[in-house]
Amino acid sequence: MAQALRLAERGLYTTQPNPRVGCVIANGERVLGQGWHQRAGEPHAEVFALREAGEQARGATAYVTLEPCAHWGRTPPCADALVAAGVARVVIAAEDPFPQVDGHGVAKLRAAGIEVETGLMRDAARELNIGFFSRIERKRPWVRVKLAMSLDGRTALANGASVWITGDAARADVQRWRARSSAILSASGTVLADNPRLTVRALSSEGNEPVAFTPPMRVVLDRHLRTPAGSHVLDGHVQTLLLHEANASATDERFARVERVVVDEKNGGLYLHAVMRLLAERGCNEVHVEAGPMLCGALFTEGLVDELLIYVAPVLLGDSARPLLGLPTLTDMADRWQLQVLDQRQVGQDWRIRLRPQA
Amino acid sequence: MAQALRLAERGLYTTQPNPRVGCVIANGERVLGQGWHQRAGEPHAEVFALREAGEQARGATAYVTLEPCAHWGRTPPCADALVAAGVARVVIAAEDPFPQVDGHGVAKLRAAGIEVETGLMRDAARELNIGFFSRIERKRPWVRVKLAMSLDGRTALANGASVWITGDAARADVQRWRARSSAILSASGTVLADNPRLTVRALSSEGNEPVAFTPPMRVVLDRHLRTPAGSHVLDGHVQTLLLHEANASATDERFARVERVVVDEKNGGLYLHAVMRLLAERGCNEVHVEAGPMLCGALFTEGLVDELLIYVAPVLLGDSARPLLGLPTLTDMADRWQLQVLDQRQVGQDWRIRLRPQA
Repeated sequence: MAQALRLAERGLYTTQPNPRVGCVIANGERVLGQGWHQRAGEPHAEVFALREAGEQARGATAYVTLEPCAHWGRTPPCADALVAAGVARVVIAAEDPFPQVDGHGVAKLRAAGIEVETGLMRDAARELNIGFFSRIERKRPWVRVKLAMSLDGRTALANGASVWITGDAARADVQRWRARSSAILSASGTVLADNPRLTVRALSSEGNEPVAFTPPMRVVLDRHLRTPAGSHVLDGHVQTLLLHEANASATDERFARVERVVVDEKNGGLYLHAVMRLLAERGCNEVHVEAGPMLCGALFTEGLVDELLIYVAPVLLGDSARPLLGLPTLTDMADRWQLQVLDQRQVGQDWRIRLRPQA
Repeated sequence: MAQALRLAERGLYTTQPNPRVGCVIANGERVLGQGWHQRAGEPHAEVFALREAGEQARGATAYVTLEPCAHWGRTPPCADALVAAGVARVVIAAEDPFPQVDGHGVAKLRAAGIEVETGLMRDAARELNIGFFSRIERKRPWVRVKLAMSLDGRTALANGASVWITGDAARADVQRWRARSSAILSASGTVLADNPRLTVRALSSEGNEPVAFTPPMRVVLDRHLRTPAGSHVLDGHVQTLLLHEANASATDERFARVERVVVDEKNGGLYLHAVMRLLAERGCNEVHVEAGPMLCGALFTEGLVDELLIYVAPVLLGDSARPLLGLPTLTDMADRWQLQVLDQRQVGQDWRIRLRPQA
């Protein structure tokens, strides 16, 4: 199963909106076939592994990181393929909550007399597809907020000057987190201030080989449609959504290459829960947020931040510089936001900390 | 020499104001005697090692982490002892810049026909006594500023509520940094707000054995002698200095158990360079600062911070909470304070980062 998970990881940047899935067909210690899902619309992991195993699959065990599908989607049901190949036993890491699978895959296999086990390395399998599980089970994407700050928790000077706080290695690392996401979310304030591209630049492996990825959608919260003509996010190079309020309108040519969608308002801003519901409906698994302290702070206080990806540079900017997150003023330490550190590591001269809000 | 350094480290908490020194006497691979300096006024490392080696020292090699002394201090010169013991070769890690040694130790050994080498593991030997070298060479102590902050660089809420941001393990770790220092420096503002003891509480080894230490002096910057009666820092449990301006005076009994010293003023505060000169004259090697953002920020902008010891708790306090350091407002990112990370490690639920300003 560990090997099946490693195979699944190869789809990290390309399977959106599908989950990353790996499959190993083995007889005892002997591996007969391996496969992983590469791209939506193309065959699933099980199909590649069965092809490689050929006739030897008969009587063998299939290790799959996610419950095999039981329905006709863009490809035939994998459960049927496993049955047809004569596999004797199927070991599944995580059950698939997708309504058209959700136990039906297991049921189909068992009905055909195949021995089925579930739960082996389930946590790791769920972690790898944390966005997919979030979208299906919670009807919202997994929201990861990326922040770059100085040691004293500042993101830019009081006058707005920011340039790059962190170094090259940190910025290259960010590209990988962008690439694995279904969407990159920002706000018009950031667009006005920095004119970011919000795309994934070249991605390469450790051996410097180019790595393929599915370009994430760009999503800009632009309540009043303030994004100016000539902004990179309007260039149409990748699919782009501009979310705005019902009353905002613009008849000019600025928005010819992007899609505009009306979102409900709440508390003087776009309703962030509605934004996330919309992104889930659009098939977004992981959403990568790169925005200013206002949007990041609002997402955080709304309970919509699932993970913080913080890059810390060993510099001090001083207490009048811009804060990390716009958060309400606390009067009681008991109300502080407690986080849990997932991992931390050095990235070039900087270091990266991943945290999740404590439940 | 690595072993001699390990021996020297055993004096980490007790040799003040003397340096930590270790000595190994060996013949080839065979160790004949070992010693380390334990306490000012007691014998030096070389003496203990020579005692252990006895007659076997004749013709052997002595490894010493610091140049042997050449003068009569509270103990006789170690260079003479090495000569008398008939040692053939002395390997020294770091030269001793102390005016009464400063090459005289080496000269004395060489004059007696002993082969002398210097510089083996010099950096490690200097690092172990970084405060001693600072005091002798720069005429000021090595200043280490301890800070505890939230992930967003805050030390307390806007209303001053702070309690403990970091956990038990971090606080125990702080005790060790306090204990190795010659003085703990704070300001009257912190005394008024928190009434700290500024002492070292019980210190124990990893095996939970109690560890001996020389209690560091308490030093409080109290320009207007505002420290109120009943403050812990006035209890006389350890030697305490109250530094104030010339015009401040108080005739009451509050200060019966502490020493008051007048310090020059500059820019509406006590002249911090004068404070450090005074502490060096008092024999302070490492000074441990635990104070608020005003004093810490002032020390930093005056270039008097040699090391930052920062404990980061995985919590968010929000941008209206109190800042880490009071620093001047920057208008140009090129002016940011660049630091160098010495090490970072997890300490309980928190993590600790040690940094030095980049030269």
